[in-house]
Amino acid sequence: MTIEGRDETAAGSPIRLGMVGGGQGAFIGGVHRIAARMDGHFTLVAGALSSDAARNRASGRELGLSDDRVYDDFAAMAEAEAARPDGIEAVAIVTPNHLHFGPAKAFLEAGIHVICDKPLTTTLAEARELAGIVARSGKLFVLTHNYTAYPMIRQARAMVAEGVLGDIRVVQVEYAQDWLTEPLERTGNKQAEWRADPKRSGAGGCIGDIGTHAYNLAGFVSGLMPESLLAELSTFVEGRLLDDNIEVLLRYSTGARGMLWASQVAPGNENGLRLRVYGSRGGLEWAQEEPNRLWFTPFGEQKRLITRAGAGAGAEAARMSRVPAGHPEGYLEGFANIYAEAASAMRAARDGTPPDPAVTYPTVGDGVAGLAFIEACIESSGKGGIWVSLE
Amino acid sequence: MTIEGRDETAAGSPIRLGMVGGGQGAFIGGVHRIAARMDGHFTLVAGALSSDAARNRASGRELGLSDDRVYDDFAAMAEAEAARPDGIEAVAIVTPNHLHFGPAKAFLEAGIHVICDKPLTTTLAEARELAGIVARSGKLFVLTHNYTAYPMIRQARAMVAEGVLGDIRVVQVEYAQDWLTEPLERTGNKQAEWRADPKRSGAGGCIGDIGTHAYNLAGFVSGLMPESLLAELSTFVEGRLLDDNIEVLLRYSTGARGMLWASQVAPGNENGLRLRVYGSRGGLEWAQEEPNRLWFTPFGEQKRLITRAGAGAGAEAARMSRVPAGHPEGYLEGFANIYAEAASAMRAARDGTPPDPAVTYPTVGDGVAGLAFIEACIESSGKGGIWVSLE
Amino acid sequence: MTIEGRDETAAGSPIRLGMVGGGQGAFIGGVHRIAARMDGHFTLVAGALSSDAARNRASGRELGLSDDRVYDDFAAMAEAEAARPDGIEAVAIVTPNHLHFGPAKAFLEAGIHVICDKPLTTTLAEARELAGIVARSGKLFVLTHNYTAYPMIRQARAMVAEGVLGDIRVVQVEYAQDWLTEPLERTGNKQAEWRADPKRSGAGGCIGDIGTHAYNLAGFVSGLMPESLLAELSTFVEGRLLDDNIEVLLRYSTGARGMLWASQVAPGNENGLRLRVYGSRGGLEWAQEEPNRLWFTPFGEQKRLITRAGAGAGAEAARMSRVPAGHPEGYLEGFANIYAEAASAMRAARDGTPPDPAVTYPTVGDGVAGLAFIEACIESSGKGGIWVSLE
Amino acid sequence: MTIEGRDETAAGSPIRLGMVGGGQGAFIGGVHRIAARMDGHFTLVAGALSSDAARNRASGRELGLSDDRVYDDFAAMAEAEAARPDGIEAVAIVTPNHLHFGPAKAFLEAGIHVICDKPLTTTLAEARELAGIVARSGKLFVLTHNYTAYPMIRQARAMVAEGVLGDIRVVQVEYAQDWLTEPLERTGNKQAEWRADPKRSGAGGCIGDIGTHAYNLAGFVSGLMPESLLAELSTFVEGRLLDDNIEVLLRYSTGARGMLWASQVAPGNENGLRLRVYGSRGGLEWAQEEPNRLWFTPFGEQKRLITRAGAGAGAEAARMSRVPAGHPEGYLEGFANIYAEAASAMRAARDGTPPDPAVTYPTVGDGVAGLAFIEACIESSGKGGIWVSLE
Repeated sequence: MTIEGRDETAAGSPIRLGMVGGGQGAFIGGVHRIAARMDGHFTLVAGALSSDAARNRASGRELGLSDDRVYDDFAAMAEAEAARPDGIEAVAIVTPNHLHFGPAKAFLEAGIHVICDKPLTTTLAEARELAGIVARSGKLFVLTHNYTAYPMIRQARAMVAEGVLGDIRVVQVEYAQDWLTEPLERTGNKQAEWRADPKRSGAGGCIGDIGTHAYNLAGFVSGLMPESLLAELSTFVEGRLLDDNIEVLLRYSTGARGMLWASQVAPGNENGLRLRVYGSRGGLEWAQEEPNRLWFTPFGEQKRLITRAGAGAGAEAARMSRVPAGHPEGYLEGFANIYAEAASAMRAARDGTPPDPAVTYPTVGDGVAGLAFIEACIESSGKGGIWVSLE
Repeated sequence: MTIEGRDETAAGSPIRLGMVGGGQGAFIGGVHRIAARMDGHFTLVAGALSSDAARNRASGRELGLSDDRVYDDFAAMAEAEAARPDGIEAVAIVTPNHLHFGPAKAFLEAGIHVICDKPLTTTLAEARELAGIVARSGKLFVLTHNYTAYPMIRQARAMVAEGVLGDIRVVQVEYAQDWLTEPLERTGNKQAEWRADPKRSGAGGCIGDIGTHAYNLAGFVSGLMPESLLAELSTFVEGRLLDDNIEVLLRYSTGARGMLWASQVAPGNENGLRLRVYGSRGGLEWAQEEPNRLWFTPFGEQKRLITRAGAGAGAEAARMSRVPAGHPEGYLEGFANIYAEAASAMRAARDGTPPDPAVTYPTVGDGVAGLAFIEACIESSGKGGIWVSLE
Repeated sequence: MTIEGRDETAAGSPIRLGMVGGGQGAFIGGVHRIAARMDGHFTLVAGALSSDAARNRASGRELGLSDDRVYDDFAAMAEAEAARPDGIEAVAIVTPNHLHFGPAKAFLEAGIHVICDKPLTTTLAEARELAGIVARSGKLFVLTHNYTAYPMIRQARAMVAEGVLGDIRVVQVEYAQDWLTEPLERTGNKQAEWRADPKRSGAGGCIGDIGTHAYNLAGFVSGLMPESLLAELSTFVEGRLLDDNIEVLLRYSTGARGMLWASQVAPGNENGLRLRVYGSRGGLEWAQEEPNRLWFTPFGEQKRLITRAGAGAGAEAARMSRVPAGHPEGYLEGFANIYAEAASAMRAARDGTPPDPAVTYPTVGDGVAGLAFIEACIESSGKGGIWVSLE
Repeated sequence: MTIEGRDETAAGSPIRLGMVGGGQGAFIGGVHRIAARMDGHFTLVAGALSSDAARNRASGRELGLSDDRVYDDFAAMAEAEAARPDGIEAVAIVTPNHLHFGPAKAFLEAGIHVICDKPLTTTLAEARELAGIVARSGKLFVLTHNYTAYPMIRQARAMVAEGVLGDIRVVQVEYAQDWLTEPLERTGNKQAEWRADPKRSGAGGCIGDIGTHAYNLAGFVSGLMPESLLAELSTFVEGRLLDDNIEVLLRYSTGARGMLWASQVAPGNENGLRLRVYGSRGGLEWAQEEPNRLWFTPFGEQKRLITRAGAGAGAEAARMSRVPAGHPEGYLEGFANIYAEAASAMRAARDGTPPDPAVTYPTVGDGVAGLAFIEACIESSGKGGIWVSLE
């Protein structure tokens, strides 16, 4: 059934989903579950929710899982679920970064689709290895760069692709937060702790956590990937082990130029992801905190406001939309759009039907590009701020 | 499990829900279903989704209902479900206004909780009768004045209640839309059709559809109900049978004064519900299209921005919140908050435990007040714009 | 010489200006002087600046006036200046309301043009008498409803007049301030003191000070004058002698409807004059605190932003404009536009040439309409909130 | 006389001003004249307004200058005015960049104060030479980096200086326009023509025209000057001779980091100068197109809005302010503040009294820094985007 554009649950056939990570006290696991539930496309039936056995079990019960499908570890889960006739069809991996690769490999090799949080892995080498595993597995791999599924981001991407902006000249992307302005990771905050720990986050702090979102989004909308970059990574909070502010210059082979700024120490910014794309014929501006609005200026004309389901919003926005214009959809709906796209692809795979060509979601290739970005930035910055090729 | 504040699904025990109305082509039914699903508190198991038999059946299948729990009419459904050991515990009534009373009565008398769309009924007399039925039934009745469950509305209400604004002096509320600027009801648009038809909507058009939301919200936040009002109802579109623009002056017994404007013919407004409350010590401003932001000015100080899960947001906002500040929650989350509040109350009723005193939702009393408002406005306007007492 | 649109000083011939009121400690007098100076059209050469002799003299010196052209009272000034070959050609009257009529009459009868602050007088009878005096004098009378001279207000007016909005249906105007939230008039604040004093302000408080601006602006842009109104005047601050919050419903003979709210007790509002006009084909929205922006929505299309000297701004806006788009012009420029319009008319009168037909400024007729509005509101409110005809 | 904070004209003593450039068809000359007139501190009495003799004379007449004080060239003007007892005390130089140095030198050496548009000169060498001339002359030199005189910029600077933000970590400044998105310089547009012509602009296009404003403003508010930078200058419009988009990374010796973006090819941006400064204890955000508003977030608290003459605005903002909060002051008032500061300094020089220590304006040193910035950026970019030391 359809409201506005987004399909609601397809009869009788929610996809059986498992989850790795996301136990009590986690953040992103809950987001994935809401996203999975929202449109009725998935049903959560199994999990390895925490490495702490008691928390794992308690979390499973809170979520209504049968005890026998709450597993001690992801390996046992992959094996057991693969063996069940009613086993999971897909798994959501919502662990810290260092625990993406292992589970992803295990489930793919067990013939189970994977939905995985970003960044893909902690190293580019691992990312590339995982890409190979995905290819060999023949299973679907969905990377939750959730911001790409905001309706107005789809609208923007479509407008750029149609040439409405002319030749793209300038890409400005930023992602500013303030929650790590002080050393929160030393106060017992779980979310801050693992993000600030190189063992769990990988070599990037802010760059991995939010910089990759900004990078991915800029590429998704502009349709351009830089050929080289120059980065300045900073750590402003004393004693912090990873970067908390990054500045990057981007050069595209088309001659376009870009700037990327991400910070977790910018007081007054909650989740300030903002993208601006300028071309020879027009400009687009979007901010994540007002996601239902896209500002478009055809050069020489008045700036105009395109709203999610309002006048001038096209098919790509409509597909991502559930309710009429003026009824704000937000972060969770955006996230749910990734799940809905995944569901559509997974159902086609299940049914052996051709996938809907409109279905679009970030995949392992985006994950490899993200790690390439992180490593190039770290190299550039480490060498004093020099230009580094991508590829 | 809890993210930020809002509880996620309580283990093993979603509430069994039925739905009356909401078949293919409807709008608000889909919203109710998303709201019911989002936090995992409900599971939809039965329905009388459409008076068109074929559409009813098809809709049920799309939603994954068993054929034997898709009923031809609400009466049959109430009877059959009440008789099943696994029958529905609650029903969502999402039909046009004239079909609220009958189903509500039937399910309440069958011992089933009711979640009902607004306005409650098409006449005040019916509304009062229904209030009596609710009282006698001992069942819960939840009216989906969904805007009251936005986190920042809860925050605003709490601040007023705590006296942060001092004595309330002025209430300004408006709800502006533009979708009925032209005679859409004569183009085959289903949503416009029934809303513009007195037989299905009752005697109010814009006033019932959105005016009651504005009225309810103003009362919810300010804690004040007017003692008299004066209204000017207009119909700007030729041939339209009901009002499409209303202006109301409100007098409160405390000496406070209010203005309410609702319009469906104001081009440039999508869903412009906006509330401002001013007191002797400060002012609050909120707009539905940016629901995560509440503007607060303590008199003589700087205006400040309170965000959903940001600094200064209190427990009432937190209870309504799922994700951190800067990750926008929207209309569907607000709606889901009503369902979550309802679920909490229904579980307490099921378990025989005392209800959580923090749980707050609009009930049949709000519905009666809404109809009293509608009828007073119609009387005032019909008599040339005179002051009319409320009670 | 012209920048953007607004003419700069015309060679060799600034208009000789006098001022009544506006001595040290006054507010609006200084605004008038800046407005008179900004484009070089006027030169201030005489004044009766204060009823306090010492302050009068000191103020004159600070402003660079010759001592012999600083007069003890307006009557002496009118007589002496009329007798000088180099006497003033125009006078700016910037006294409290009760001191508008006397000076205006004296200067008009002395053959001197008058620029006068609003509201015109303290009673409608006086206003009408003054209108007769103006007519008999053959001199120009300019009422400084300064907000009518913002470029985007001219743009809005032109768009309405051209029918861009179709038939006007709804006018929403408000003017909210907060500076009188507490009894400032009892703390020695001069500005608050006279405004709260019926002897100097007349029978209206908030309604005269800012309500008339809102009323005038709505009429200026919409091109409509109401045929009847209903008002609710309130005084929220204990002991205050005049209204500090007003609510008005407006009925136009065309069937259009309007609401006007003005308040000086709405914390968080500095100078919140805001106008919205909706018609059968589109809507316009403007706020004084962002005066360079006009929001326009053609029904069924995207909202668009018209900026002062940007794309789509027409000749009427350009005439009021000095610098390119994006270089904000503000309150003082708007005020100066009134002076520039006045200068153009005065030069034409001086030269005996036909006035520029584009020149537009509020005149004594607007002042009479303003007093009619005030008295009708007071009558309506005094009789319990009834409908009162406006002529 | 004082309104709010800004002094109005000091009695009897406007400063006699001349102007070089600014004849018919120019833009910035008119801005300087309005700025000079607004507060009554200057009187324009002489000029060499255009190199075109006829236009020069006509322009002089339009401005009300005596024919004998309209000079064929700046050299003649400097000599003649220096010789007159009533000669000019100051000159405003409002010519294209390549004509700043010559006139500035001539007037300084003739003992006349100089107010000069930016950038100071076309080369750093010339800028340094001019700094020496200023020092030797003992005269005042005022560079019209007008944006530094917006009240909220003064407020921001004061807050940073007082440590309200803690240690400054991140400076984000941008200046985006769109008017050169197409090759306007080849259409006869005078403003575009000289700016795009290296002979008249110097080696920088966008960087000199607006980049220097952004750079200067960032330094003015943050109190920090970078020790090195890396720049990427681009020219997107085919055939254009100078840069139209620049990206710069800034390193400060304190460890702070900055990004600067300036563009004249970003459709949808009119005059988008925007500054954000983040420190260990708070953040500030300001945008030129809404100049009366400064957003301040003390870390961990709510974002708050400081307005020009509103609660929490301090003495530095008040000195730059003419009218109460909510009555927007704009670009011309900001520009006039530079003139008012200059007037204060010039009067003190005239009277031999000590200058007011609060008086602050950009001077020749800022001009030298601006040229150092331009040349460093050009060097950096020319060498492929490398880090370049500033001094």
